[in-house]
Amino acid sequence: MFVIITYDVGEKRVNKVRKKLKQYLMWTQNSVFEGDITEGKLQKCMAEVNKIIKKEEDSVYIYRIYFPAQIQKDIMGVVKSYEDIFI
Amino acid sequence: MFVIITYDVGEKRVNKVRKKLKQYLMWTQNSVFEGDITEGKLQKCMAEVNKIIKKEEDSVYIYRIYFPAQIQKDIMGVVKSYEDIFI
Repeated sequence: MFVIITYDVGEKRVNKVRKKLKQYLMWTQNSVFEGDITEGKLQKCMAEVNKIIKKEEDSVYIYRIYFPAQIQKDIMGVVKSYEDIFI
Repeated sequence: MFVIITYDVGEKRVNKVRKKLKQYLMWTQNSVFEGDITEGKLQKCMAEVNKIIKKEEDSVYIYRIYFPAQIQKDIMGVVKSYEDIFI
């Protein structure tokens, strides 16, 4: 299963959310992670992220795509690496 | 076709990119748009966004998903409206 996760999380919690998602998925853009993951691992990841976020302020979107062969991804502009931005 | 577009664009250009994407897709989160769109309209949208961004600094990711029935979307936390944030 392919997953895209996008998040809009308060500054105080954003690093924690990012670190957590990085354990399970690949960072692709400022507030987007993606990758192949099993349902079990995704559930674990979501439960952990759920403990970090403030439900009344933050939002996390999870798109599960069951047949990754049917996704086409294109990029306009630069491809940034995690290290460029956060290290 | 279902499309998810995520962007990471310099502050000077972000409003223009947002306005342009809003003409074609639905805003869902700070830097994410999504929606059903034809290939022709998406090409037009991308060509217009391409004129706004600085290719060496900004990045725009386009995920095309050909069978929208195979997407499952979940939300943790709040669902923000465009008006909450930009108006």
